[in-house]
Amino acid sequence: MDILVVGSVAFDSVETPFGQADEVLGGSATYFSTSASYFSNVAMVAVVGEDFPVEHEVMLKEKNIDLAGLQRVKGGETFRWKGRYEYDLNQAHTLETHLNVFESFSPELPEEYKKIPYVFLANIDPELQLKVLEQVENPKLVACDTMNFWIEGKQDKLRELLKKVDMFVINEGEAREFSDEASLVRAARHILDCGPHTVIIKRGEYGALMFKDDEVFNAPAYPMEDIFDPTGAGDSFAGGLMGYLANTGDLSEEGLRKAIIIGSTMASFNVEAFSLNRLKDLTLDEINLRYKAFKRLTHFEEL
Amino acid sequence: MDILVVGSVAFDSVETPFGQADEVLGGSATYFSTSASYFSNVAMVAVVGEDFPVEHEVMLKEKNIDLAGLQRVKGGETFRWKGRYEYDLNQAHTLETHLNVFESFSPELPEEYKKIPYVFLANIDPELQLKVLEQVENPKLVACDTMNFWIEGKQDKLRELLKKVDMFVINEGEAREFSDEASLVRAARHILDCGPHTVIIKRGEYGALMFKDDEVFNAPAYPMEDIFDPTGAGDSFAGGLMGYLANTGDLSEEGLRKAIIIGSTMASFNVEAFSLNRLKDLTLDEINLRYKAFKRLTHFEEL
Repeated sequence: MDILVVGSVAFDSVETPFGQADEVLGGSATYFSTSASYFSNVAMVAVVGEDFPVEHEVMLKEKNIDLAGLQRVKGGETFRWKGRYEYDLNQAHTLETHLNVFESFSPELPEEYKKIPYVFLANIDPELQLKVLEQVENPKLVACDTMNFWIEGKQDKLRELLKKVDMFVINEGEAREFSDEASLVRAARHILDCGPHTVIIKRGEYGALMFKDDEVFNAPAYPMEDIFDPTGAGDSFAGGLMGYLANTGDLSEEGLRKAIIIGSTMASFNVEAFSLNRLKDLTLDEINLRYKAFKRLTHFEEL
Repeated sequence: MDILVVGSVAFDSVETPFGQADEVLGGSATYFSTSASYFSNVAMVAVVGEDFPVEHEVMLKEKNIDLAGLQRVKGGETFRWKGRYEYDLNQAHTLETHLNVFESFSPELPEEYKKIPYVFLANIDPELQLKVLEQVENPKLVACDTMNFWIEGKQDKLRELLKKVDMFVINEGEAREFSDEASLVRAARHILDCGPHTVIIKRGEYGALMFKDDEVFNAPAYPMEDIFDPTGAGDSFAGGLMGYLANTGDLSEEGLRKAIIIGSTMASFNVEAFSLNRLKDLTLDEINLRYKAFKRLTHFEEL
């Protein structure tokens, strides 16, 4: 196995201007794993309740996602999230959150997961993210995500975590909040001073910016006619990014740039449908074609 | 002369998080002309009052900007705008507007301006923009800008204008408002159906998108450590774009893409200082270097 992801598995109920979906498969670990599975073998550590149907497990296993680390709590209910997007699809409005079995989640790595070289700590309590890092042995690359809730409530733990992380993936507004800087360039520098050698700032429909040493890379988002459901876009992005890096083992500047475009490619597919309905049935040809479209989208000649 | 611009000349008073400037030179025609002057000869049609100091005219003439079309109203006062930017620098908050001589402005083209091949109609009343087009003869490229005020108040005239325009340069929010579409791809298609063969959507610190036939081009904004003053960024962008197009005469897809990056380059310089303080003293070496930085900013390899 190449990639370890620790995060959430959820049932999402989502309303967007294009429709609604009830109790569909979601969660950061789910989106990440499915996206990464096109490039690498993923091992997932997460928790579900007894209500988690076997067909979801079958789908994930068909993607060669290892579920030995998926805890099943007897008599428990799976994490549920209900949210709505208005026409500004960059902003989710949370209507309900039921943590259920996720509330007492404590990530325990199966023995065979401890030497996995690529580690993604999806958005969970930084104390749990730290607990995962205590269990892994000499990872090649550790990346993590977070959210405003932890920036506001557990910033000390988050800063402790960042010292041990190579790559930080964070939303634009959260980067500004974390660094207390209006300028993204200054925000990125602040984060790099905290430990990671690379920071990737996600900007929703505006794409992503990577800062590494003195280099900056701008990746656009693919201009979509309709964004049916932005849920999971950030985790699909991270999944494509990490999946491609683990596949090539190329952590050079050029390798990272390609991986970010692969991440953007996977995110662009993900938003075309509710849940994982589009993301789960892609072909490598479709992925290659979309990557080429990103190349054309950004191409201009020298003067 | 290669380019005709019709727009405003103003005294701006601006507050930003980085400081303030009082009654400094501004206006759409001023920013546009100064930016375009690095690539082409510009003729400016605008109006000022008797209070317009000779040193501003000297500066513009030193840039080889032709002022035969600059009307001077005896006893009149120049247009004044006062505004403030908060940390969200994409949004100007207007504090005061004194149209003064601009209120009764009626663009009259000197005879020698009527055959100028590249025409830019900066953001003024669409009736006046139409009046300019009645006076020009066989232009090679006509581009125009507008604002929400005209979209809300004179949309019929604006739609009449668009039938006669090749290129429409518009802000993201205004494109959505004009088309009544949340999706920018749909908004762009709506605008292309109104007449122009090219629409360029300005997204502030997120760059610009060009839509032409079935092609889409994404230009980033240059990530700046500090944006001192965003005033005039859109007109500096249009000036660089039109100046480069008039210089090369290359209206192909590839030529337009390069011109957009030149526009983005000029806008990135403009926001580094108040008024035209940075824009007016650039060297071609500086412009070339920044263009190369855009190339590096967006570069990624094929898979």
